[in-house]
Order: sequence, then structure tokens, then C-alpha cells
Amino acid sequence: MPSSADTAATELPTTLAGRRCLVLGGAGFLGRALCRALVAAEAEVTAFGRQSAAPAGLADAARWLGGAFDDPDAVARAVAGQEIVFHLIGPRAPAESNRDPAEDARQSILPTLGLLEAARAAGVGRIVFASSGGTVYAPDAAMPATETAPTEPITAYGIAKLAIEKYLALYHRLHGLDFVALRIANAYGPGQLPGTAQGVVATLLDRALRGLPAEIWGDGSVVRDFVHVDDVTRAFVAAALYRGPVTVMNAGSGAGRSIRSVAEDAARLAGGAPQIRYRAGRPADMPVSVLDSALMRRETGWTPQVDWDEGLADTARWLKSARGAG
Amino acid sequence: MPSSADTAATELPTTLAGRRCLVLGGAGFLGRALCRALVAAEAEVTAFGRQSAAPAGLADAARWLGGAFDDPDAVARAVAGQEIVFHLIGPRAPAESNRDPAEDARQSILPTLGLLEAARAAGVGRIVFASSGGTVYAPDAAMPATETAPTEPITAYGIAKLAIEKYLALYHRLHGLDFVALRIANAYGPGQLPGTAQGVVATLLDRALRGLPAEIWGDGSVVRDFVHVDDVTRAFVAAALYRGPVTVMNAGSGAGRSIRSVAEDAARLAGGAPQIRYRAGRPADMPVSVLDSALMRRETGWTPQVDWDEGLADTARWLKSARGAG
Repeated sequence: MPSSADTAATELPTTLAGRRCLVLGGAGFLGRALCRALVAAEAEVTAFGRQSAAPAGLADAARWLGGAFDDPDAVARAVAGQEIVFHLIGPRAPAESNRDPAEDARQSILPTLGLLEAARAAGVGRIVFASSGGTVYAPDAAMPATETAPTEPITAYGIAKLAIEKYLALYHRLHGLDFVALRIANAYGPGQLPGTAQGVVATLLDRALRGLPAEIWGDGSVVRDFVHVDDVTRAFVAAALYRGPVTVMNAGSGAGRSIRSVAEDAARLAGGAPQIRYRAGRPADMPVSVLDSALMRRETGWTPQVDWDEGLADTARWLKSARGAG
Repeated sequence: MPSSADTAATELPTTLAGRRCLVLGGAGFLGRALCRALVAAEAEVTAFGRQSAAPAGLADAARWLGGAFDDPDAVARAVAGQEIVFHLIGPRAPAESNRDPAEDARQSILPTLGLLEAARAAGVGRIVFASSGGTVYAPDAAMPATETAPTEPITAYGIAKLAIEKYLALYHRLHGLDFVALRIANAYGPGQLPGTAQGVVATLLDRALRGLPAEIWGDGSVVRDFVHVDDVTRAFVAAALYRGPVTVMNAGSGAGRSIRSVAEDAARLAGGAPQIRYRAGRPADMPVSVLDSALMRRETGWTPQVDWDEGLADTARWLKSARGAG
């Protein structure tokens, strides 16, 4: 089964053909993959981000619109005439957000409320929101978490994601603005840069490929649900095409993997023995986060297709080629 | 049993004696009553609000501090040296908040995050937050609602209250800042001005006393949980003195009353036949909102004491005397 970001788009349904789609956060890891998939599905794609020009590889396929998400005029221009808006802009990584929750709220909740006003004024058909399955649930919720698990975020990032879901529901109720919020697990795969706060798979794999020891926060027992970027992209498309009544759905692999086991798998793939250095744990870490995505499967037919070993190998190939190119 | 705002304070526990208490929103309906109760309990009371001077009746008892809640310096000055901070500032009524959710968030979520930063910097011992039992729960939640009912607010006001509860929990977890959030039902009683968005009992009673017909949104079938201001004040004090692990508790009467029945009771009390004019319903109205306060009773011993007929008569006396004085 093909699983790289470049080939996955060919598997997408084609009913987005000719639909005007806006990807907010189009230069990010998920945003770039989504734009490529939408272009492959023959949608008319506009990508929006703070960069003044399109990132490499996107220029030919999608129209690029540079602007600040907290600039109402820029957002109004971006949403004008759009049918489906994919909202993938998030200001900070979960742990960082706790350093300044007010700043996090200013960068996420407030501009999103500006987006909702602009979207209803422009008559946007649907907003597909990238919520966060890894941060909205209570740390002591039963895992895998279903959508009805208690929502008690332990990061400002998660609180903002949850509040935005509720503002989306409010705009739906008040103004008929349609939405689907996907509570996405930890995405990984080709295109994710190592060294970023959320890219733990890319970081561990990159270090293993370079023969360096893994550096892990805590004792490595933290468990996450890693879902391949191609599966996330397919989930976004499924959410855009979904015609049922459910508005909030998990999208994860359903499998829990400890950070330590990821480091070990990365080392094995790189052909070396696992070397792990442990650093002091971060209080923002949920001990275990795994998503039950049965609702999404039942409602949309979506199900994760990329298996872990394959996805990891795929990511390793991309990291090597990216290094070669850089 | 005494139930007016002036006499109730004598029933309060006295263990707040000498404690430095700040009441944010000290000039509001609940804020004034709370200040009086705290003074009667021999606390050292500071009241904060946007007014430049203390409202009548508060000047002798509490220190007044005028300032804007979104001014970090004013808030820092207010919380300096305080042991217990009662946060009663809410920007708008629920229905109004839906006209401009972004403005509501700017006036509630953001300055509250400023407060939390100031409170942790100042080493405040506890924040008691006036959350909203009438707006945080899902409209289709089973009633009376317990604290574990689904939280799906249908107003921006309710979304902000819920988000603030979660930010309080975050600051507790990250910085040890202690808090109790009270999900208060619809407060009524002496001191509440008729004609305000939230003062439906005062408004209906005032019109009945003046021989005017009641004006009701919708068909009057909307059911609310009306809790007397003296009981709310006692709930705040109980929350301030509480030493258990629970942080979010309902505080209501547990009885549901339709708006129509309130209008009828008000007319009967005024000695006339009920006259009701119906106006188009507001989409922000929950059909039924009644709170189960068993958790609060179990944890703190608090229980509502003012019965409805007594509370209504009490409110009527105050309205007449306020009119006489005005």
C-alpha cells in the first residue's frame, strides 16, 4: 500500500473536484500534505499562512495567500468565495503554551473567533477544524478515549482547542455555519521536520539515522497514538465530505506506543542499538493518550491505513532525502 | 428565618475574621451582598470594580478600588496581599454575549488570564470563581444537572465561563494556585435591579408591584433554578472556607420554576391578577436549567435556606423601599 505524502492523494475520493478549498496553516506539516491531497483531488486550493510566499513544492499547485491570522482583513480576503475552510492554524506546542496561557489564547481563540465571523459573513459552507485528541481529554480518562470522555486539558493549548470546538458549535447553532472538528492524534510522517516540539517521531528517527542517542523527556513511558500524515489527510477529506450529524470526531491510529519504544524502533530501523538519554519530564505531559476512532469510522468510513513499520520506514526515507537535498 | 441581604451576614461562620478578601465586581448585585457578608464576618474586605467610587452602602465597610479588569497594573494592585480573591466579574448577559463572541472573550477570558498571572505572582491563597450553572451545561443534559453532565454551552458567555474553569484548573496544576468554581444558578433577591438582563425575578416583581403586565420572552415555559442572594453569599463563604479536594460545584435551589409561574407568583404577591404579554423567544435560552447541588452540600455542608415565597416577599419589600428612596 502506498503511504508517502506524494502518492497517497491518488487514493482520495474525487468528489472535491472543483470545490473551492482554503487551507489555513498551509505551510505547516499537515497543511502542506493536505494541500497536495486536495490538489490531487482536483479541488481549487488556496493556502494561507504567515509566510510571504508558498513553501517549496506548493507553488505550482495551490494559490498562496500570505497574511497574519489575527488580521481580520487578511482572513476576510482568504475566506471570500471559499466553500470549505480547513483550519489548521495553532500557535504553539502544548508544553510551550503553558508558559503564557494568555498569549496562547490571544493567538488561537481570538483570531479563530475572527475567522468564524468572516466565514459566516462570506457564506462558507463548512469549516473543518484540526482539534487535538492528544490534549483535550482528562489525563485520567479511560484510554483509548472516546469523544464522550471527560475533557479536562492540562495545557493552555488543549483548553483553547476545546473552547474553539464550542465556539464552532455556537456558530453552527446561531448562524448555521457548518463544521467538523477532528480530534487528531499525534501526526507523524514524511514532511515533518525533526527538532520541532511536536515532531517526536521525526526527531527520534533523525537522531537514530545520524547515529546520535535519543533524548527523551521523562522515563520514556509516556504513551502516544501516532497517526500517519496520509491517514490524517484522508481524515480531513472524509470530514469535508461527511454528510451526517456528528460534529466532533477522534482521528487516531488506536494504537498506543511509548516514546521509549519509538526510540527503539527508530534505532532498529537505522541499524543501530538503541541509545537513550533521559531528561527531566515535563508537567504538561499526559501519561497516556490513545484515541478510539470508532465514531469516525462508523460515520465516515475513514480508517487508518498506514501501518507503523511502513510509516516509520517511509519517514526515514524522507528524512534521508531531505538531508540529501538540504 | 431572616433572609434579607442585611441580616443574613450574621449567620455566616466567623472564621473569615481577619482574612484579607478581595471581591472583583464588588459593585454588582452579588458583589455588594458578598462584601457586606464578608465585612459582617470580620474579614478585611477590598472591593474592586470599574466605578471610581464605592456604591452607596459599601463605603464604610470595605476598601474600594476603582479600575479596569483588563488593566494588568490595576489588577496587580488589587490582588497584592490578598488571601482570598472572589472573582465575580462577568462582562455581559448570556444572550447579549452571542452578538459578539470575540468581544465577550476579550472581556472575560483574557483579563481573567491576567488575573491568574497576578494572583500567582502575589501568592494569593485561593480564588473563588463565580461560574454559571445556568449556561455551562448542554441544553439536552438531564436535569437537575450534576457537575458531570455534558458541558455544551449555547452562549459565548457560557463558553467563556467553562474555559475559565479549565484555566483555573491549569493554574492549580502548574502553579498550585488554589481555586473553587461555583456554578451558580439564577440569583435573585434584594439589591437586584429590575430591567437588567439577568434580573428576571426583580423585573417581573417590579412590574407587578407597579400594576404593569409582565413581558416574557417566548411562551414562559422556560424553566430556571432561582437561588436567593443570601444563599449565594453563603455559598461563596462556604467555598472560601472549604478544605476538600473538589474544585467545581453547583450552587442552586434545586427547584425548577417556569418564567410564567414566576410572573404569576409576582402578580399574586402584588395583589393583582397575572397579566402576561409574550414576546418572541431568544435562541440563547436553555429550555430547562435546574441544578443538583448535592455535591456542594456533601462537601461543604452548604444548603439553600431561603424558601421561594419568603425570598419573593423579601425582594418585593426591597423593591418598594428602593423606589421610595429613589
